Amino acid sequence: MTRIAVCAPSTPITPEDAEAVRALAAAEFPGLELVIHDQCFAVDGHFAGSDDRRLEALLECANEPAFDAVWFARGGYGACRIAESALARMNRAAGQKTYLGYSDAGYLLGGLYRERIGRPVHGPMLADVRRSGGADAVRRALGFLAGEREGLEPSLGNDRHPVVAFNLMTLAMLGGTRLMPGLANHVVMVEEVSEYLYAVDRLFFNATAHLGGIAGLRLGRVSDVPDNDRPFGADALEIAQYWCRRHAIPFLGAADIGHDAANKIVPFG
Amino acid sequence: MTRIAVCAPSTPITPEDAEAVRALAAAEFPGLELVIHDQCFAVDGHFAGSDDRRLEALLECANEPAFDAVWFARGGYGACRIAESALARMNRAAGQKTYLGYSDAGYLLGGLYRERIGRPVHGPMLADVRRSGGADAVRRALGFLAGEREGLEPSLGNDRHPVVAFNLMTLAMLGGTRLMPGLANHVVMVEEVSEYLYAVDRLFFNATAHLGGIAGLRLGRVSDVPDNDRPFGADALEIAQYWCRRHAIPFLGAADIGHDAANKIVPFG
Repeated sequence: MTRIAVCAPSTPITPEDAEAVRALAAAEFPGLELVIHDQCFAVDGHFAGSDDRRLEALLECANEPAFDAVWFARGGYGACRIAESALARMNRAAGQKTYLGYSDAGYLLGGLYRERIGRPVHGPMLADVRRSGGADAVRRALGFLAGEREGLEPSLGNDRHPVVAFNLMTLAMLGGTRLMPGLANHVVMVEEVSEYLYAVDRLFFNATAHLGGIAGLRLGRVSDVPDNDRPFGADALEIAQYWCRRHAIPFLGAADIGHDAANKIVPFG
Repeated sequence: MTRIAVCAPSTPITPEDAEAVRALAAAEFPGLELVIHDQCFAVDGHFAGSDDRRLEALLECANEPAFDAVWFARGGYGACRIAESALARMNRAAGQKTYLGYSDAGYLLGGLYRERIGRPVHGPMLADVRRSGGADAVRRALGFLAGEREGLEPSLGNDRHPVVAFNLMTLAMLGGTRLMPGLANHVVMVEEVSEYLYAVDRLFFNATAHLGGIAGLRLGRVSDVPDNDRPFGADALEIAQYWCRRHAIPFLGAADIGHDAANKIVPFG
């Protein structure tokens, strides 16, 4: 039996989300046990409970030797407020676990990777069950945690470089902070959602300045771009290629990740 | 006669904006001559002309010894794409000038300050004439360029530290790039517009990580905050105080700057 602890370092999920995923797991993944922390349903302003509550829940999940993995319930915003404190208090058991999530969970994945704690993995979260096709996203995440390999991002293994994947805004915000991992020699995958193209360009300006020495960049989906009062004049692919060229970063093509149900799995490293 | 060159390193203005400000200057500031570069009206997708066109116009204004100041026409987005190239090609005459703007012009102000070129100043731009009360903002900028002191941010001179002012997003995006000035021992003023409070919190997470060793932070106006699907749980003042506390940055109170007609003038240094 593989035991998976679910907590919400950012924003809350609903009991209905939790029940839907619990039922799917029970029906299709008999080798998995999901333990969904009550903190996932707490609400404190924007967050799934206060910083203290989210921190304590994360540490209960990470530091408990009986759990094999920590699955982040949902993104949104908030993990960066508790990540440094959490990393500082993680124990030996925390170092044996897989940590799965994306989007705002990237602050934790980045910090865990920097501190070489456990096995950070970019992939679907519990709250993705709400999306159209979301059951497949949840199946992909649970399948990976059960030991399947089908959900992996297809370019993995194309070369010998270690790989990371981040939401572009999250990566830009990580830059220069105590959560930012060294990414020299890595293939870096980025995706974005709900940002104007001028903001995507601005984020690339910042993020590529922090990516000197990487092996290359792959662009995931840039989705739900709002309409601006005028066209930007370049699409997301051209923007990525432009900033890679400016910083002599090899542009390696597409990555099959994004804020959608098709979001594939990228184990860091 | 003080000669002021106007160019648009980011987005375009309209001939009507230009004419309104030209008329105001002619009527009220006989000692000023405004030379508005044609590039200010160029349109190329999001930008006031291509990167090359904006770069050449900026250099024509900065490198011409007959001009005493360069006044940025408008923010929006785009200055970061040409700032490094512009700084690399600036001549001796460029080092004698005042550079006035804010918002997206902050990429240039930051880079100029880092390279110790001329006198970067945070203050109203030509396009502010469109705002309610915008004529007063333009008067403040022109008055400053004419040698008046009335428009200065009122906390200036409260202590002996050098001062800078930035839009918060611009400051966060500057972090870690080749445009970011060293700000040790400085009072740093920040303002923001049209960002969700969770995004303001996220920007403070990033920006304060780059502000170690500053003398203190002052908070300008955080305006036009969009409504989110739920309240954030803290206001902009509490957010600023929280992140200052986490990084042991003295919080010094309010700054009289913002994306509005009351935006006061902050000469860097």
